Amino acid sequence: MKARVTVTLKTGVLDPQGKAIEGALKSLGIDGVDSVRQGKVFDIELAGADKAAAEATLQAACEKLLANTVIENYRVEITG
Amino acid sequence: MKARVTVTLKTGVLDPQGKAIEGALKSLGIDGVDSVRQGKVFDIELAGADKAAAEATLQAACEKLLANTVIENYRVEITG
Repeated sequence: MKARVTVTLKTGVLDPQGKAIEGALKSLGIDGVDSVRQGKVFDIELAGADKAAAEATLQAACEKLLANTVIENYRVEITG
Repeated sequence: MKARVTVTLKTGVLDPQGKAIEGALKSLGIDGVDSVRQGKVFDIELAGADKAAAEATLQAACEKLLANTVIENYRVEITG
């Protein structure tokens, strides 16, 4: 079973990396970009075919390792 | 206009960061994970309401800055 976990910064948390990308895009002459926020994506393959078990595993993985839940949100999607 | 750009490693490109996450999940007692590959996600706000122009801007941003097209794939989605 395949899944995608997306981890993004919560609203209000500063994102200096995103700001740096915004600046770099402007200096490359790419206009029209108002803001950039960077996050992480994890493409995960899981053993077994039980969707509920896979979701529980991924939620545990996010809470314990993949996301810092103080400053980040995460979303789990089973993709196939 | 809002968009999300997802940058992932091409198939066959080694991902030591993903391998490290796999190992860490195992040592945390989270079983059933076969493989992990890490990528990046950019949440971008654009000025203007022209979808085609926004897609062109984002494609230029990916080719020039956000993705290394030798080893990475990118996907642009207009989200709202």
